[in-house]
Amino acid sequence: MKIYPIKGIEISSIHSGMYEKKRLDLSLVKLSSNCLVSSAFTKNKAKSSCIIFNEKNLKKSNPKYLIINSGNANAGTGKYGMLDINDYCSVLKKISNCKMSEILVFSTGVIGERIKYKNICESIPKLYRSLKEDNWVNFSKSIMTTDTQAKIISNKIKIKNEYITITGVAKGSGMIKPNMATMLSFVATNLSIDKKTIKSLHKKAIEDSFNMITVDGETSTNDASLLISSRTSIIDYKQLSTNDKKRFYNAILDIYKDLARKIIKDGEGATKFISINIKNASSFKEAKNVGMHIGNSLLVKTALFAEDANWGRILSAIGNSEIKSKDLSSVEISFGKFKVFKNNEKAKSYNEKKLSRYLKNKEIEINVNLNSGKSLATVWTNDLSYEYIRINAEYRT
Amino acid sequence: MKIYPIKGIEISSIHSGMYEKKRLDLSLVKLSSNCLVSSAFTKNKAKSSCIIFNEKNLKKSNPKYLIINSGNANAGTGKYGMLDINDYCSVLKKISNCKMSEILVFSTGVIGERIKYKNICESIPKLYRSLKEDNWVNFSKSIMTTDTQAKIISNKIKIKNEYITITGVAKGSGMIKPNMATMLSFVATNLSIDKKTIKSLHKKAIEDSFNMITVDGETSTNDASLLISSRTSIIDYKQLSTNDKKRFYNAILDIYKDLARKIIKDGEGATKFISINIKNASSFKEAKNVGMHIGNSLLVKTALFAEDANWGRILSAIGNSEIKSKDLSSVEISFGKFKVFKNNEKAKSYNEKKLSRYLKNKEIEINVNLNSGKSLATVWTNDLSYEYIRINAEYRT
Repeated sequence: MKIYPIKGIEISSIHSGMYEKKRLDLSLVKLSSNCLVSSAFTKNKAKSSCIIFNEKNLKKSNPKYLIINSGNANAGTGKYGMLDINDYCSVLKKISNCKMSEILVFSTGVIGERIKYKNICESIPKLYRSLKEDNWVNFSKSIMTTDTQAKIISNKIKIKNEYITITGVAKGSGMIKPNMATMLSFVATNLSIDKKTIKSLHKKAIEDSFNMITVDGETSTNDASLLISSRTSIIDYKQLSTNDKKRFYNAILDIYKDLARKIIKDGEGATKFISINIKNASSFKEAKNVGMHIGNSLLVKTALFAEDANWGRILSAIGNSEIKSKDLSSVEISFGKFKVFKNNEKAKSYNEKKLSRYLKNKEIEINVNLNSGKSLATVWTNDLSYEYIRINAEYRT
Repeated sequence: MKIYPIKGIEISSIHSGMYEKKRLDLSLVKLSSNCLVSSAFTKNKAKSSCIIFNEKNLKKSNPKYLIINSGNANAGTGKYGMLDINDYCSVLKKISNCKMSEILVFSTGVIGERIKYKNICESIPKLYRSLKEDNWVNFSKSIMTTDTQAKIISNKIKIKNEYITITGVAKGSGMIKPNMATMLSFVATNLSIDKKTIKSLHKKAIEDSFNMITVDGETSTNDASLLISSRTSIIDYKQLSTNDKKRFYNAILDIYKDLARKIIKDGEGATKFISINIKNASSFKEAKNVGMHIGNSLLVKTALFAEDANWGRILSAIGNSEIKSKDLSSVEISFGKFKVFKNNEKAKSYNEKKLSRYLKNKEIEINVNLNSGKSLATVWTNDLSYEYIRINAEYRT
C-alpha cells in the first residue's frame, strides 16, 4: 500500500527504551507553522496527565510539535505526571525554540507507573535531527502496545487538477470503547481548511467511526485523536464545489472508518469482525444504544466466537438496552441475510445448518430491524475468545 | 446444614425430560390459602412469556401454585410461549381445582426454543401427588442450569418464644446482573406478614443483595424473585417490637445476601469472590454506579483472575462511571487493607510482594474511598477466566 507523506508534516521515530524489547516506542512530529489542528480527547475522568497538558496548551497556542510514546500511559501518576512532561518538553523547547504551549504529548501503555522521562529527554535531540516527511510507517509502528498490526492508511483524491492527500495512523486493541476518540489516532491532509471547518469535519468523522466501535466497553484514560491540515496545498476547502466538499469528507471518513475497522480486527483475541447494523430506529441515539448493548454483551461475543447462532442472547441484549418500545414483538433479527427472529418468535425460515455455515465466516453481520422509525447506526465489534483473557491476564495496562 | 421447611408450603420435584440427562428439572410448589406473596421480575424488555403470564395473574388473584422448570426459558417463543403455559397450567387447574389466575410459572434455560409443554403436562399429576413440606433441597436442585452448586439457605430465629423460620433457594450463574431480582429465587417464612409490609421488606432485601451483584452485566429475560409468608406462625409482624422487626429483617436480609453470594461464588468460571466496597460517596446511587463499573470491567476481572494488582484498570473504570467529581484526585483505592492509589498517584506504601500474596486469596476486597460524601454500597462480583468463555461458547442459553 502506498503511503503519501503530507507536505508540511515531518516525523521521526526511535527506540527510547520504554520497552525492554528493541522496538520503536517514541515519535516526534513537527507541524509547519501553517498547520491547523482539530483535537478530541477521552471523556474518562481518570484523565492522563498528557490529556490535561494538551487541553491547557490548545487554549493558548497552535501546536508545532507532537511527542508520542507507547509503553506508559502517564495516567494515575500524580504530580510526577505533569513534572515529567514538563521535563521532556523543556528539552524540545530548548532545541527547537518553540513555546511550551506549542507542544502536545500523547502516551499509551501501563497506567500508574511513572514514565521513563529521562529516556524521552535523551531521545528528543536524536528525534529532532532525523525529522522527515516520509516517515508515517515508522510512526504507526511506534505507537503500538498490545496491537499485533500497525494501523496506517493513506489516500489521494484529485480536486481541480491538484492532488489532495490524506494519511492516518491509529493504535488500539484493548480498553477500546472510544468516547470522542480512540486510543490514539493522527490523520493529516494537505488541503487548506479553516479552523471551524476542520473541527466540524473531525467531529463528524469520529462520530461515524471511532465512536461506533467497541472491543470491551472500556473507555481509556488516554484516548486522543488529531486531524491536521498542513495547508500546503494551493486548494482551499472554501473554494470547493458542494460535490468536491462531499468527496473530500467521504475520503476523510473512509480513512477514519478504515482505522476503526483495523482496531476492531486487531481487537484483543478477536477471531471475527462483527458489524451490527441497526435500522428503522426512532433515533440515531436509540440505534447506537441498541447496537452497543449487543456489541458489549459478553454472551453474544462468546457465542460468536463459538460460531453458535445464539440469537436469544441478542434478543436479551436488546431487551436490556434503552430501546423505546415496551416489548420486542416488532423487532427482527438476522445473521447476514438469514432471518432468525420475527413476529416475536424464531423465524419460520430458521435453518441451523445454513446459519452454522454463515457463522464460520471471518466477517459476520448482525442485522436488527427495530421497525419503529427511520434512523440507523452501525456498531463494529469482535468476538470474545480465550485469547482476550490470556492477553489481559498477562498484560498490565 | 439444617433446612427448615416452612409450614403451609409444599413442594415436589421431578425429572420431566427438559434435559436429556436424568436430573430434577421441574418443581411444583403449593401455597396454602393463607400465604401472601411479594414478587419482583426482570426489567429486561425481552420478557419471557412466564413473566407476562405472572404479571397478569398477580393482578387478579393470590397465587396458590408455582410451576418452575429449568432447561428452557420460554422467551422469544412468540404465541407458543403463552399457549404452552396455558396448556400445562390447565392440567394443574383441573386436578387441583384452582383458578388459572392462581398459578405462577417460572422458566430458566435456553431462549428461543419452544418449551416441552407435553413433558410438563405429563409430570404435573405426579408432582401433585408427591407434594410435601420437607422438599426444599430437591427444589433447589431442580432449578439449576449452568450452576455447579445448588443454592439453598435456611435459618430460624426465636421471637416471643416462637420459632420463626426462613428458607430460600436461588439459581443463577451466567446472564447475571439482576435488575429487581435474580434469575430465580424463592424465599419463604412462616411469620405472618401483611401485604404492604412483605412488599417493602422484599424490595429492600433485593436492593441490598441481588441488585448489588454482577457476573457479566447481563440482565436476564426471566429474572424472578418471590418472598412468601405462609402466615402459619401465631406471631404477626405487626405485633413485633421495633427491635424484633429489625432482627427479623436482618434474618431475611442474611438469607438474600447468602443466596446472592452463592450465585457470585458459582458465577460462570469464577475463581475469586470479589467484594467492591465504595464508601464516602455523595449518594448510594453514585456508590453503586462506581461499584458496578468496576464489577463489570473485563479488564479489572481478568487482572483479578491473573492475581495482578492492576489498580490502573480500577482507576480507569471509576473514570468511566457516573462519578460526580470532575477528576479522581481525591479517590483512594485499596486491595484489602493495602492502599494502592492515593493523592492521584501510586500509594507511598505500595508493595508489590504483599499485594501478590493478598491477591492469591479466594476472597478479595476492593475498597474505594470517594471522599465526597457519606454514602456507601457494596457490589459483589467475580473474576473473568478462560472457563467463562468455555461455558458460554459451549452452552446455548
